[in-house]
Order: sequence, then structure tokens, then C-alpha cells
Amino acid sequence: MTSYEKGSPDGDYVRVPKERLFSFVASVLESIGVPGEDAKIVADNLVMADLRGVESHGVQRLRRYVDGIRSGGVNVHPRIRVLREGPSYALVDGDEGLGQVVGRLAMELAIEKAEKSGIGVVTVRNSNHYGIAGYYSLMAAERDMIGISMTNSRPLVAPTGGVERFLGTNPISVAAPTHGRPFLLDMATSIVPIGKLEVYRRKGKPIPEGWAINGEGDVTTDVREVFSGGALLPLGGLGELFGGHKGYGLSLMVDVLTGVLSGGTWSRHVGNTEERNSEVDHFFMAIKIENFTPVEEFKSRMEAMMSELKTSKKHPRFERIWVHGEKGFLTMETRLRLGIPIYVGVLRELNRIGMETGVGKLMEEGG
Amino acid sequence: MTSYEKGSPDGDYVRVPKERLFSFVASVLESIGVPGEDAKIVADNLVMADLRGVESHGVQRLRRYVDGIRSGGVNVHPRIRVLREGPSYALVDGDEGLGQVVGRLAMELAIEKAEKSGIGVVTVRNSNHYGIAGYYSLMAAERDMIGISMTNSRPLVAPTGGVERFLGTNPISVAAPTHGRPFLLDMATSIVPIGKLEVYRRKGKPIPEGWAINGEGDVTTDVREVFSGGALLPLGGLGELFGGHKGYGLSLMVDVLTGVLSGGTWSRHVGNTEERNSEVDHFFMAIKIENFTPVEEFKSRMEAMMSELKTSKKHPRFERIWVHGEKGFLTMETRLRLGIPIYVGVLRELNRIGMETGVGKLMEEGG
Repeated sequence: MTSYEKGSPDGDYVRVPKERLFSFVASVLESIGVPGEDAKIVADNLVMADLRGVESHGVQRLRRYVDGIRSGGVNVHPRIRVLREGPSYALVDGDEGLGQVVGRLAMELAIEKAEKSGIGVVTVRNSNHYGIAGYYSLMAAERDMIGISMTNSRPLVAPTGGVERFLGTNPISVAAPTHGRPFLLDMATSIVPIGKLEVYRRKGKPIPEGWAINGEGDVTTDVREVFSGGALLPLGGLGELFGGHKGYGLSLMVDVLTGVLSGGTWSRHVGNTEERNSEVDHFFMAIKIENFTPVEEFKSRMEAMMSELKTSKKHPRFERIWVHGEKGFLTMETRLRLGIPIYVGVLRELNRIGMETGVGKLMEEGG
Repeated sequence: MTSYEKGSPDGDYVRVPKERLFSFVASVLESIGVPGEDAKIVADNLVMADLRGVESHGVQRLRRYVDGIRSGGVNVHPRIRVLREGPSYALVDGDEGLGQVVGRLAMELAIEKAEKSGIGVVTVRNSNHYGIAGYYSLMAAERDMIGISMTNSRPLVAPTGGVERFLGTNPISVAAPTHGRPFLLDMATSIVPIGKLEVYRRKGKPIPEGWAINGEGDVTTDVREVFSGGALLPLGGLGELFGGHKGYGLSLMVDVLTGVLSGGTWSRHVGNTEERNSEVDHFFMAIKIENFTPVEEFKSRMEAMMSELKTSKKHPRFERIWVHGEKGFLTMETRLRLGIPIYVGVLRELNRIGMETGVGKLMEEGG
């Protein structure tokens, strides 16, 4: 039995059963005014991130959501409106609702349109942080569609030739069904997401040279320099020599398809969850495979491609050849069995939130 | 008056007026059986690459096209068929026609569908090398649409953890209109396209460390090692530390949307232009902006974003902040005025082709 875990815990932690974590998060959100169904959507999204080993987008973000709701930055009773639509597209205004609630509704709309017309494209404005991008693309893959999900996000990344935080880490996710686990690409368009740097900061360790720059534009290994006036680098790194302009361009592509197309904004003007009018914008797309090719044949081609990849000649210094999504699904299988590792520091913060909101502690620190 | 040129010539060259180069290429193709209109499409595509400074995809490829046609690898009288379609999508079989002829028809179909229904998605199988991806996305931008164009291509890139040439350089292009020059992203999903290495090989110069590996998987600066059994690296480089798995994933995304979705194949099985059943597959998409937001407002937002980018704080070691497409358009403006630089070696080869086909020389070597 496998027990692979991506982002395996390397500090003190406790393991929390998935259901317990889910109930806790949903209860906290309900206790501060989020309608029950919406609280469950957000909890599902955050817990899925932890299950898949993307802890930067998991329950450790709960504090920001709670603060965002309390400050009025997030509207818990949004009037989410479809402003324009046709058989294969829609424009949605999220009315500053929770990103997961807006995002799920918008992806469902894209899927519904694809179900009827073959293609569904939905662009969204006035939303908030929507968690992991792969949550939405997977919804389509589960319905035998190719799913695409993108969002802009607050500025953290310098464009090629610049030093300012201008671009978001603007993730792109694409999911496609196979006979087994879906193919799932879910990537920030920067070299690393900011969450990775937060981990290095917590541990007081230097970051790899090439991930980020300081305020003068010099590549730095000192994570504090990045947080005080520096910036992340786009995928491909500093300058054009290794394709930094490509990561920069992909980030702009996300801004074009999300905020510019929807009448929202672009990353430079996107705010934090706690701010009013943080103006996060999303893009969703679903392609109904059956309209192009028989689904079973599509899946067989996916399987063949992935299996050829995995059995192609391995690099002597690497353990194996992975296909996108695989690590996350293996991690999920492990964690469904053993529980989700929660760092003691995160547990302490969750317990604090539980006490503040009258929900009670998630778990005693001793486990 | 600007005279910026991307990929400015650094060897002996002559300048050839655009019209002359276009007529020469079209005449050569006609002389070996390509119908007049189709020959013009291919000539337009190749000359546009040279105009924009992407010489690797320009007229220096003419030999491969000629050989492909002569060997029967390319079908000059294809029966291009729409196998399935709906108001916003289509599946096209290119019948092994010239990639540009198939591609242009497919993108026109995507635009036509977007014109009527808001969205057009067209996936294509059984085509050939289609030149620069940006040629097609720009067609949409000229019609006030967002255009997307992708193609798979012969295997040259190693997946993360592997050493085999498995992935294509699988380019992605996205174009969007502004009040001025369009935004135009056109990028290989590898760090560099193979054409860049060919330039280094011609000059006998070492390549930057990190672009490619030899047959053992070691990063090499010896371009000959790459051509004899080595491979290019995906955007992000070797391993996962700088995001190599992201370039790898984007490349797979292209394979999924082109060959896997269309019932074609994936890069590992894609052949050269000269081979029968080279099986190149494409993906095109057009989004009619007006259906989402007033076009003028979209363009104003694009302008604002781009102008904010260009006036944001510059990196002290870089000359300026570029936006995607800008270098190509400036190069085009220069070359429309001064002529297109053609290396003497390329001119010699073009003249040889001209003599072989009875078209005559493009230009005497002295200019």
C-alpha cells in the first residue's frame, strides 16, 4: 500500500481526519454568517488542497477568510449575477462573494453550457480568492470534459525587465479525464507560489537562488528581502535567457482572459481577501469531449500517452517520471487513510479561531 | 524613426523587399503543384515570420516544405473535412495538407463560429507544420476577438525526470486587440525552440548552460551533444526546482487539446514535414470580445495595463520593459521599410531551390 505524501510534514504535526477538518472549517464559516451550503463549498475546497498536499492553499488560509468576512471585504450574501450569456458563454459578476462560491457556480455554468452546446466559457469579475485552481478544472474532468480554470491574484511577481510587483502568480489549471486518475495540471505562472517562500521564512532557511529578487532587482536567497520590497520571478526566471518573458506572458494571458475580458481589473490592482473591492477575476472553460471524439477513445489515448511517458527512459538522477496530478492523488489517498497532517502552529491558530467563533477547538495540541 | 530589429542579423546578409520574397516563395510552391491560393497562404505565413524576426520559422524552412511536397509527405490537394461541428466548435481533418492551409481554414472557421455564437473552438488532426503559431491568433485579434493557437510538434524535449525526446516544443499563442498593436504572446513551451540551437551550431558557439541535456541527461553547453541524442529542456529547466514540470505540463496541455482531443496523436509520434503521416495536430480558439464587454472598453483596459507595465519601475540592468508582440511589430515596421535580411547561406539555398524549380534566383548573392 502506497503512502506517498507530497509536501510531507517536516515539523511537529498532528493528523486530523478529513471529515473532522471539513466540519470544523464549515462550522467556523457558518458561525460568522456564511450560509450553510456556501460554508461547505469553501471547506471542501480548502480541505481538498490539504488532501492533495497544497497546504499553502489549505486550511492555514482560514484566518484570512475569517478576517475578510469580518472586515466586510468578503460579501457572505452576494447577489451573483449572470450579466450576459449565450449558449456557450457567460459573464458573471461575483458581487464580492467568497471566491469558492462564485467559482463553483461559474464552473457549473460552464459545464452546463458545454453539456448543451459542446463548449462553455465563463469569465467572472468581482470575486475573491478562490483557492486551488484545480478544484474547478477537476469538476469538468469528472463530467468527461476537459476543464480549464484561471484566476488573477494580488501582485507579487516582477515583469521581465522590471522590479515592481506587478503580476499575480496567476495560476492555470487544466484537467482531463482518463480511465483512472485525471490528468491535472495546476501551476502558478511564477517559478514558485508565495506560499513556498512563506515556508522558507518560517524555517529561517535561504531560498534557492533564482526564485526571487530584492527591491533592487538582484536575485536573492534571503527570503526577508523578498518580503520587504522584493518580488517573485516569473516562470523562466530573471531576464529572457531562460524564458522569463514566457512566464511573464502566461501571467498576462491570465489577466487578459480573467479581468480584462470580464470588465474587472488586472493583477496590479487586485487586493487581499481582507480588502473591500479586492476585485479578483476568474476564467473557466469546459469542453465536452464526446462532441469531438468518443470519450472512451479519448481516455484510452490519455492512458497511452501517460503510460508511454512513465515508461520512457528515466533520468539517472531522478526517482521516476511523474504525470501531472499523480502526486496529488497519491497524497490524497494516503491522507484519506492516515488523516491530514496539520502543523502544530497551524493547529494553534485554528483552535484560536474555533474559540473566537464559539465552535470550539479542532483538536487538543497533544493530538 | 525607429529601426529596432529583433534577431538582428550578425552574419553576411542581403535585404530583400517583402513583396519580392513573398512572390518568390509563392512561385516556388506553385511550381511544384501547390494551388495558387494555397501557395500564397504559405508564403504569407513564412514571410510574416521573417518580418517579425522569427527567422527559424521563416523562408529558411522552404527546403523542408519543398522536400515534404516532393516526397509526398505533404498532400497539396487535400480534402480538408469538417468531421463534426456545432455552433461553437468543430473537428477538422487536414488530410495531410500544408499546415498553413489547414490552419488558416480552421482558424477562419473558429472566427466564423465566434462571430455567430460568441466562441469558436476548432481542433485539427492530420495536418503538417503550420509555421508561427501567432499567425493564427492574430487573425482573430484583427477581428476584435481574443485568438488562441496551439500545435503539437515532433519530439525534441525531455519530460521532467526523463531523458528521451518525448514532448514537442508545442507552442502556445494568444493574441488580443488594443487600440494600437495587438498583444501577442507566441512561445514554445521549451526554454528555447530548436531553431535557436541551430543558430549556435551554425556559429560553432556553446549554448547557455541549462537549455538542453545530452543523452545521459547532463546539462550541456555543447550543441552537438544535443543534436546527437540529447534533448531540449522544458520551460523551467531540469527537474522541478525552477518549475521544469510546469513547462512539461504546458507541453502536455497542448498535446491534450490538439492530438488527444482531435483523435490525432501526441508529440512523441509526430513526424517531420518530409514524412508521410507526420500527423501534426492543432487547436484554435476565438472569443468574440463584444459578447462579454464593449470592444472599445476592452481595448482601453488593454492599453492601460500595457502602459502601466511599460512605465512601471525598470530593472537597472535592463533597457526597458517590453510587452509581448511589441518587438515583433517594431521589427516588422523596420523590415517593411528596409527589406528583410536574408543570410547569404540561406539566400544560396533559396537560389538553388529557385533554379531547381525553374522559378529562377531570388537575388544574386552580391545583392
